[in-house]
Amino acid sequence: MTSPYDQHLERNRANYAVQSPLGFIARTAEVYPQRLAIIHGELRQTWGQTYARCRQLASSLQKAGIGKNDTVAVILPNTPPMVEAHFGIPMSGAVLNTLNTRLDAETLAFMLDHGEAKALIVDPEFAGVIAKALKLRQSKQPLLVIQVEDALYGPAAEQVGSVDYESFVAQGDAQFDWQLPADEWDAIALNYTSGTTGNPKGVVYHHRGAFNNAVSNVLEWDMPKHAVYLWTLPMFHCNGWCFPWTVAARAAVNVCLRRVEAQAVFEAIRQHGVTHYCGAPIVHSLLVNAPAALKEGIPAGVKAMVAGAAPPASMIEGMEAMGFDITHVYGLTETYGPATVCAKHDSWDALEIGERARLNSRQGVRYHLQHSAAVLDPETMEPVPHDGQTMGEIMFRGNIAMKGYLKNPQATEEAFRGGWFHSGDLAVQHPDGYIQIKDRSKDIIISGGENISSIEVEDVLYRHPAVLAAAVVAMPDAKWGETPCAFLELKAGAETTAEEIVAHCKKHLAGYKVPRAVVFGELPKTSTGKIQKFELRKQAGSASAISG
Amino acid sequence: MTSPYDQHLERNRANYAVQSPLGFIARTAEVYPQRLAIIHGELRQTWGQTYARCRQLASSLQKAGIGKNDTVAVILPNTPPMVEAHFGIPMSGAVLNTLNTRLDAETLAFMLDHGEAKALIVDPEFAGVIAKALKLRQSKQPLLVIQVEDALYGPAAEQVGSVDYESFVAQGDAQFDWQLPADEWDAIALNYTSGTTGNPKGVVYHHRGAFNNAVSNVLEWDMPKHAVYLWTLPMFHCNGWCFPWTVAARAAVNVCLRRVEAQAVFEAIRQHGVTHYCGAPIVHSLLVNAPAALKEGIPAGVKAMVAGAAPPASMIEGMEAMGFDITHVYGLTETYGPATVCAKHDSWDALEIGERARLNSRQGVRYHLQHSAAVLDPETMEPVPHDGQTMGEIMFRGNIAMKGYLKNPQATEEAFRGGWFHSGDLAVQHPDGYIQIKDRSKDIIISGGENISSIEVEDVLYRHPAVLAAAVVAMPDAKWGETPCAFLELKAGAETTAEEIVAHCKKHLAGYKVPRAVVFGELPKTSTGKIQKFELRKQAGSASAISG
Repeated sequence: MTSPYDQHLERNRANYAVQSPLGFIARTAEVYPQRLAIIHGELRQTWGQTYARCRQLASSLQKAGIGKNDTVAVILPNTPPMVEAHFGIPMSGAVLNTLNTRLDAETLAFMLDHGEAKALIVDPEFAGVIAKALKLRQSKQPLLVIQVEDALYGPAAEQVGSVDYESFVAQGDAQFDWQLPADEWDAIALNYTSGTTGNPKGVVYHHRGAFNNAVSNVLEWDMPKHAVYLWTLPMFHCNGWCFPWTVAARAAVNVCLRRVEAQAVFEAIRQHGVTHYCGAPIVHSLLVNAPAALKEGIPAGVKAMVAGAAPPASMIEGMEAMGFDITHVYGLTETYGPATVCAKHDSWDALEIGERARLNSRQGVRYHLQHSAAVLDPETMEPVPHDGQTMGEIMFRGNIAMKGYLKNPQATEEAFRGGWFHSGDLAVQHPDGYIQIKDRSKDIIISGGENISSIEVEDVLYRHPAVLAAAVVAMPDAKWGETPCAFLELKAGAETTAEEIVAHCKKHLAGYKVPRAVVFGELPKTSTGKIQKFELRKQAGSASAISG
Repeated sequence: MTSPYDQHLERNRANYAVQSPLGFIARTAEVYPQRLAIIHGELRQTWGQTYARCRQLASSLQKAGIGKNDTVAVILPNTPPMVEAHFGIPMSGAVLNTLNTRLDAETLAFMLDHGEAKALIVDPEFAGVIAKALKLRQSKQPLLVIQVEDALYGPAAEQVGSVDYESFVAQGDAQFDWQLPADEWDAIALNYTSGTTGNPKGVVYHHRGAFNNAVSNVLEWDMPKHAVYLWTLPMFHCNGWCFPWTVAARAAVNVCLRRVEAQAVFEAIRQHGVTHYCGAPIVHSLLVNAPAALKEGIPAGVKAMVAGAAPPASMIEGMEAMGFDITHVYGLTETYGPATVCAKHDSWDALEIGERARLNSRQGVRYHLQHSAAVLDPETMEPVPHDGQTMGEIMFRGNIAMKGYLKNPQATEEAFRGGWFHSGDLAVQHPDGYIQIKDRSKDIIISGGENISSIEVEDVLYRHPAVLAAAVVAMPDAKWGETPCAFLELKAGAETTAEEIVAHCKKHLAGYKVPRAVVFGELPKTSTGKIQKFELRKQAGSASAISG
């Protein structure tokens, strides 16, 4: 018998609406039309104006024949059109595909083809690479190319667009009656993973997930209304961890930034009263290591979010010295950006910096509106004991996990096998439930049958005062199978030797974990600041061991 | 042709989880097990302990044969079992039915019958009325009665339970593997409306709605993690506007309170560092009008939420004098509590108090995660012009609207006709989009064919220095059909006369709006502090006009 709670109590238009981050801008423009939404150079744009422009963009896209499930790609730095793209494109029903601005023409062409883009919005800085990509593109489908002008960049070297962005927006209706998607499961964005091997995979986000992650960002940061958010994290990267939507939800300010440079960041903090920013460790290092003169007059209490690698003690110390409050998060493109946070405890404040840094370097606990984050044995799918020792794979379950990979059912099935999203990161879980990454599955070094965590060795290397950046990869070894090879980038003006590094490691590591080779030089990094270990692995093949 | 965005990208256990406020306590207990969850007299209970007890409660309920869609009623003041009921009961799959503690036995019996309650948790204070209600109950269905003991109340006058609450909880498994509902549309709570005429209607809440309103509470208040929330608002009222779930989401502290008294409230603020509380206007008036000695040592910045009637200028002024920050919200049982908020603007700070009070007395804009709040013409369902003049009915659409009325498809259909939830409140919409109530549909006074808003007249009455509370209703009049009749409760020690009140009104109102009769005395209020106009209407029938 059906329960009375399930009878005549169906969903209807009055009591059910899809959850979408597009609702945030509509409300903010309605309640706070006069508040500042965007700062870019001399430009000051309110939420009322921004919402009107997003509706115009959506309207123009629809007039151009673009609608539900059509891909609109953009190659844009952190500029106003990039903020607008996060609303205007999905408001037309289309799917926003933010392209990594540091990619080569060939990869970009692959993405335009694979994503079946029908339109492309191009910043003047990338007109050159796009011109090449368009020639390499194989699809015969028409592609509407819209070119942005930006006084802060200057004239484009090439003209690739058939229409300029401002004219395109101006053609649209500022009162356009856009509609939320019929289903919150509908796609809102497409993000290609950097893909160290093979072709990039297209990660599809849906409205429900973007909504949940955007709100989780507020919850983690206790982010108040009208915060001032500085765009140091590329919006092309996991849609800026969903922050374009979070900023709209908070009726906050987007401070745009074409390029992350210490001086520009400190100036923005002083001039616009920036309260929040995110970035890879390299961004925070840049600020910590900037000349003291640049830091003058910086107010205390700026909140920073870091992901990409655990923040070393020196960074935490440097951030504290500046009066910044750093939060460590972890996630993947597949989890809309942050999906765990190293939630801090009052009791940590009393600890000495080394211990605090150790606790804070952990990946932590599930993000607020994520259902589960766990370390499971990938064979049995059972949770590992919370002993800080037993390794397993970090897996996620819940609304902050992608819809799947576009046109790649096999990879999707593989990623979700057993009812969990498999991160590919190996980790332990501590007695307090906090997760700590030990390595990427493919980064583990197996030496004489023993697993060596490259992260453990890197942590020791980072403690050496001369080291700015460190990466450890496996080096083939006739006797042991693999041994660790260290690649080091030194701080400006610092000097050291391979022998000194090895001696330092011997003090802190078991003998078999000590690097057998040390290579100095700039480390190759991805466009999002991650060190490219696959490049180093190639080099390690030809590195020569320094000690037997 | 199906789009690639809709192919092989289905929901699965890895990327979809139901949204439920029950997830909040699980995460908080996992991340902050040692943090304080509940203060009640001498009791200090952590989130770890609270979650364990909720799991025990859920486990014991299941052992007692209670599960999905079974109703578990509770009659409890704002005590720890009431907090636990908000988690333990739905964790068993059951539906929480919080009974209004001020109701009579007959009405309670009706609710137990209509809601088909299978279990009932009873505070010692209400054992007497429940003993009577159980005799009046018509259902033959067995009812498990669980009686709470509370040292802060003392021994119950009667024993109605077959088991005491602590023993019942103790029988349960603290590791109980409870499950989220299969569908976020499943019922989580049942709340009977006070119902001024006819039988009370049973408003059904679902998990999705409770989740959305609980998060909206955080967003409106910028409510930080670890806030300290004082329970001045009854949890039986719209589930305390979803704040039991909000408090869990914030790993905050529930400061329980059996009875709202000025001294107890100020003591709690001083002793426990209360940061947030909610209540009907009467709660805030109580504090504003308390002796100065009681207010000594109160920190600035306590945040208060008020609903039930617009806060008059005197209240806002009084709150400001105490250093409290008041937020005006509006909603109904059918909207989980708050569904609009009078969002403040920085520019208001510079205005004089009267103007600020006027702006802040409006019901405002839709709550954060609500889809729409609008004033529509109930005939045409078209929005009224935003002119601050044209009256229409406040209507809602979105996830913060009830599932419907239990076993009352006709009332449900009526409430949702035209795809909007009809509030029954008449209002205008101002040019800034803010909604302002003019009257309940049934409270409008029609005098000589002219509509008189009882709220407009009450606003003027509240401005008289002697007036503590005011209500205006229609009084039958042979000539005009109806005329306004004022009922006034005066401040302690204050004196005035009907003539003086009439003279005051004549200064501020058109002649036909001035009350023709003035009655002094305590005003009848509902259990949630609302003035019972239907009682006053009966009295107005026999009131005598004082001026022609």
